[in-house]
Amino acid sequence: MPRREIIDVLSKYTDPFRVTRGSGFRLKNFDPRNTLGLKMDKHQAAQLLQRGSKWLAMEQEILYAQDSWSLLLVFQAMDAAGKDGTIKHVMSQVNPQGCDVFSFKQPSTEELARHFLWRYSSKVPQRGRIGIFNRSYYEEVLVVRVHPRLFEEQKIPPQLVGGVGENIWNQRLADIAKFEDYLTHQGVIILKFYLNLSYEEQKKRFMDRLNKPEKNWKFSASDVRERRYWHDYMHAYDEAIHATASKSAPWFIVPADNKWFTRLVVAAAIVEAVEKLNLEYPKVTPARMKDFAAAREELHAEK
Amino acid sequence: MPRREIIDVLSKYTDPFRVTRGSGFRLKNFDPRNTLGLKMDKHQAAQLLQRGSKWLAMEQEILYAQDSWSLLLVFQAMDAAGKDGTIKHVMSQVNPQGCDVFSFKQPSTEELARHFLWRYSSKVPQRGRIGIFNRSYYEEVLVVRVHPRLFEEQKIPPQLVGGVGENIWNQRLADIAKFEDYLTHQGVIILKFYLNLSYEEQKKRFMDRLNKPEKNWKFSASDVRERRYWHDYMHAYDEAIHATASKSAPWFIVPADNKWFTRLVVAAAIVEAVEKLNLEYPKVTPARMKDFAAAREELHAEK
Repeated sequence: MPRREIIDVLSKYTDPFRVTRGSGFRLKNFDPRNTLGLKMDKHQAAQLLQRGSKWLAMEQEILYAQDSWSLLLVFQAMDAAGKDGTIKHVMSQVNPQGCDVFSFKQPSTEELARHFLWRYSSKVPQRGRIGIFNRSYYEEVLVVRVHPRLFEEQKIPPQLVGGVGENIWNQRLADIAKFEDYLTHQGVIILKFYLNLSYEEQKKRFMDRLNKPEKNWKFSASDVRERRYWHDYMHAYDEAIHATASKSAPWFIVPADNKWFTRLVVAAAIVEAVEKLNLEYPKVTPARMKDFAAAREELHAEK
Repeated sequence: MPRREIIDVLSKYTDPFRVTRGSGFRLKNFDPRNTLGLKMDKHQAAQLLQRGSKWLAMEQEILYAQDSWSLLLVFQAMDAAGKDGTIKHVMSQVNPQGCDVFSFKQPSTEELARHFLWRYSSKVPQRGRIGIFNRSYYEEVLVVRVHPRLFEEQKIPPQLVGGVGENIWNQRLADIAKFEDYLTHQGVIILKFYLNLSYEEQKKRFMDRLNKPEKNWKFSASDVRERRYWHDYMHAYDEAIHATASKSAPWFIVPADNKWFTRLVVAAAIVEAVEKLNLEYPKVTPARMKDFAAAREELHAEK
């Protein structure tokens, strides 16, 4: 199938959820249960996803051979929205050598002593690689915004905070947008996924973790604590997406109440973005041709 | 199948190639074409490998949930022995979130300015993870030994070099063995793979890279240059394996002239090592039980 047609097919799954400008953005206009009217059983969905993941694996090999573009996939969501499972299933076929996943947890004292992008910027993927941020620098305008104590720990000079007041978040969001802009100039393709879980579905999944022994290890008491701040988080997400959605670093507001659909949309968005790069295996330059001839000669001359 | 039986089956593929003490070790006693008399077509071998990789993926989930042990897989070989392909195929089913691959290339000036283990030790896998070193600190007693120029770049104080002379390599190897020893005390399981490619098969594979357009990008003129030092490398490998093979950090001398067999042996060795850990999903402690009860209550009380 020609690339143009593949992209057309994929865009049916991605266009409804892609946000490329923030103006007027509100999370509540997106339905976490949306499946575009699709009905699939688990098995069908898993098969389709596997095809997508295989396709991605093929394209990733070319990305790696090209050694020029890279892909940064940012995953953000409330707890239990399915970040880990999505990463696992969408990336299931991809060569781990070309794919690095970073989970950012609580910052260390050393990290807190630096500017807020410091610990993330060193993890930006190398050329030719897919880098996945399981949580990201967006936490700096989400959890840090919701819990003022965490902001205080960052020890920013008071004069720089007092001057801008609540505007500190707009400033920080603008800094993030500029950072992303800079990365795209360097050949980093940025896709940002918000896994859009409903308040009700989160409760169900927490109950599941509490009640099923094999899921117990995933449960943390802090999950329920954070749930109390749901509305604050929604506000912080609204503002973050509003300020940082752009054509070159789009957000995808992925319905997350049905896991199979979440995974399909994420896979479609990634494959689509890579297809648009029109990648091919690197061509051999005349200089390399000469090298090849010399190498062939040397190998033939061996006794 | 009980764990003990699984381990027995796997050990048939691994015992013949495992080196746990260096005394008397010589690479030339290992046949790169050995397949233990097995004959498989590509399809059969790929199916078997996929089963192994799925098994590994399951065990890796428990490793991750446990968050205590980690696995360090060191891959060393001459060019074109199949490191990249082995990593790709053996790890094909494993969640990339639990598996980090590091390829160590030429050191940077900053790295050269440090002690030789510096750049590797920061990449040792986190607890719960599989870390793969595609080339490793062993290059410091291989390529650096074969090319004295590279050793000079490390700017070690001359007094420390002059004192020990050629013995510098024995000293360095002993330091590596001690470093590995230390890591095992910390819960890092270390498996070291030497993909044992014959001189003849390397030539064939180079020719393939030169002659097949889709493989051209893999070819580097320096590959043929390094081939001239084949005997020096074999000597350096002999000495390295001699000095660092141990029960807690064994070497596997994996026949590499048949790719399908290489991959099976590597997969078997990894699964076997993980099985021996007898991992289980973490049990819920009484303190956590209390947390669970409180969380359940809070969720139920929501309106």
